Amino acid sequence: MSVRILRGNEPVAALDVDDRGLNYGDGVFETILVHQGRPVWWPEHWQRLTLGAKLLEIPVPEEANVLAQALELARGQTRAVLKLVVTRGGGGRGYLPLEKPVPTIILSLHDAPGLVAGAIRVQWCETTLAIQPRLAGFKHLNRLEQVLARSEWRDPSIFEGLMCDNAGRVVCATAANIFMRIHGRWLTPRVDRCGIAGITRGWLLLNLDDVEEADISADGLLGCEALFLCNSLRGILPVRSLGQREWPDDAGIAQLRQRLAEAEPAFHLPL
Amino acid sequence: MSVRILRGNEPVAALDVDDRGLNYGDGVFETILVHQGRPVWWPEHWQRLTLGAKLLEIPVPEEANVLAQALELARGQTRAVLKLVVTRGGGGRGYLPLEKPVPTIILSLHDAPGLVAGAIRVQWCETTLAIQPRLAGFKHLNRLEQVLARSEWRDPSIFEGLMCDNAGRVVCATAANIFMRIHGRWLTPRVDRCGIAGITRGWLLLNLDDVEEADISADGLLGCEALFLCNSLRGILPVRSLGQREWPDDAGIAQLRQRLAEAEPAFHLPL
Repeated sequence: MSVRILRGNEPVAALDVDDRGLNYGDGVFETILVHQGRPVWWPEHWQRLTLGAKLLEIPVPEEANVLAQALELARGQTRAVLKLVVTRGGGGRGYLPLEKPVPTIILSLHDAPGLVAGAIRVQWCETTLAIQPRLAGFKHLNRLEQVLARSEWRDPSIFEGLMCDNAGRVVCATAANIFMRIHGRWLTPRVDRCGIAGITRGWLLLNLDDVEEADISADGLLGCEALFLCNSLRGILPVRSLGQREWPDDAGIAQLRQRLAEAEPAFHLPL
Repeated sequence: MSVRILRGNEPVAALDVDDRGLNYGDGVFETILVHQGRPVWWPEHWQRLTLGAKLLEIPVPEEANVLAQALELARGQTRAVLKLVVTRGGGGRGYLPLEKPVPTIILSLHDAPGLVAGAIRVQWCETTLAIQPRLAGFKHLNRLEQVLARSEWRDPSIFEGLMCDNAGRVVCATAANIFMRIHGRWLTPRVDRCGIAGITRGWLLLNLDDVEEADISADGLLGCEALFLCNSLRGILPVRSLGQREWPDDAGIAQLRQRLAEAEPAFHLPL
C-alpha cells in the first residue's frame, strides 16, 4: 500500500497516537477512483471534503499540495482507489479542539473494485441510521453505523444492504446512494438528516431529466418500477432483487449507465 | 507522552494508517485515573471496555497483558491519566470487518486534571445527541457530537456543557454524567438511547440510598434542588450555576463527596 502522511504541508513518517482522527473520528474522508493515472471527479471530491472540514471547523489543507501528492500516487495506475483522510490533527486529551489545529492529511492507494456488468442482489439492514442533521450529508470519520450494518452479512451473493433511518425512511446503502423510479419519475432519499451526499448522486441530480429528493418508506421503495444504487467507485448498479422482490432489466437504467460512461470514461463497462 | 502500541499481544512501533480506529472510529476507549501508581477502578473500566468491544464484535484483548502494560506506564506516577484505546485493527478499505481481526491496543499517559474543590458553572449545549440505541451506553470512538458540543465555548469560567437528546431529554455533559435531586430523590438520565454509562455514575447507582434512572426534561432539571456532574477523572462536581439558575451549597452533595473519597482515596479533595 502506497501511503503519504502530511502534517499541514509537511510530510511526516507516521501517524501520532494522539491524532483526533483516531481518538474521536474527528475528520473527513474521500475514496476516489483512479483511472489511467487520473483521480476521477477530483473537483467534486475536493468540494465535499472541504465542505465537511468547514462544518467541523477543521482547517482546509492547500488543494494544490494535496492534489500534487494525489497525482504522484496515481501516476501509472490503470485503475485503483485513492483514499484521502483529513483529520483535525493532534491535540492532547479531551474533546476541546486546539484553537489553531494543524490538520493531518493521509493519502493511500488501494486496489479498485471491479465494475459490475449485471444487476445486483441487495437486502435490508437491521441497523438503522440515527437522525443527526449536524453530521448529515458529508463524509466524516464516525462510521460505526455503516460498520454494524455491513457486518450483518457475509454471503458474497448479497452485494449491498439498504438502510432506513430510525423513523423508517429509506436513506442509502452501506456504501452507496439509492435511486428509484416511481410513476415515471426518479426519486432519491434526502440526506439532510442522515446519510451522505454522494458524488455520483450529485451527477445524477444534475443530469436526470425528472428527478427529486424525497422521503420514501420501505414500502414505497418496494413498489418502485426500477431501482439502482450508485457510488463514485462503481458508478450505477442496477438492482435485480431485494428479498423476494425482483425487478426486470430496465432500459432507462441501461441508458443512464451509457450516459454516465460517456460523461466519465472510467465507468465504461467491460465488454 | 509515554505510549505503548500492541497488535494483539505484540508490541509494534507505530499505528498503521489502515487502522479501523482511524478510518471509521471502529473501537472503544477508557480514560483511567492513575493515583500513586495505581489505575483507579481498573476492574470497572475493563468491564466497560470489554462490554463495548463485545457489542462491536471486536476481539477482547487479554486483560493480564494489557494490565501489565498499564501498570508499567503508571509506575511512579503520583497522579496522571491513562488512556486505553482498543480498535478492530487493520483490515484494508471498506466497512466489512475481517472475519478474524487482530485488535490494536494503545496505552498512553497524560497529565491529570486538577481536582475541583468548589462548585462549577455550566451551560446548555446547542448540539444535541442523536438517538441510537445500538451505540448507547458504551465508550466507542465515534465522538463527533461531543467534539461539536465542547467546541461551543472557550470561556474558561464555564466548566462543562449539558446535552439533551434530539427529543429534548437531558442526557449528560460533554464528558460527565449528571445527577439531580428532585423531591428528595436522586435522579440520573437513562443512557440506553444515547450517552455513556459512566464508572462514577455506576458507583453512585450502587451507593446512593434513593436513586433512579429517569427521563428528565430541561425544565425538570432546572427545577431540581441540587445538581452535580461526575466522571472517573474528577469524581463528583457540584454545580453552582446553569445560565441564570443558581444552586446553593448542598450538604447532601458534600456528604457524597466525602463518601466517595472514603471509598476511593484518589478523590480526596485538596485542603
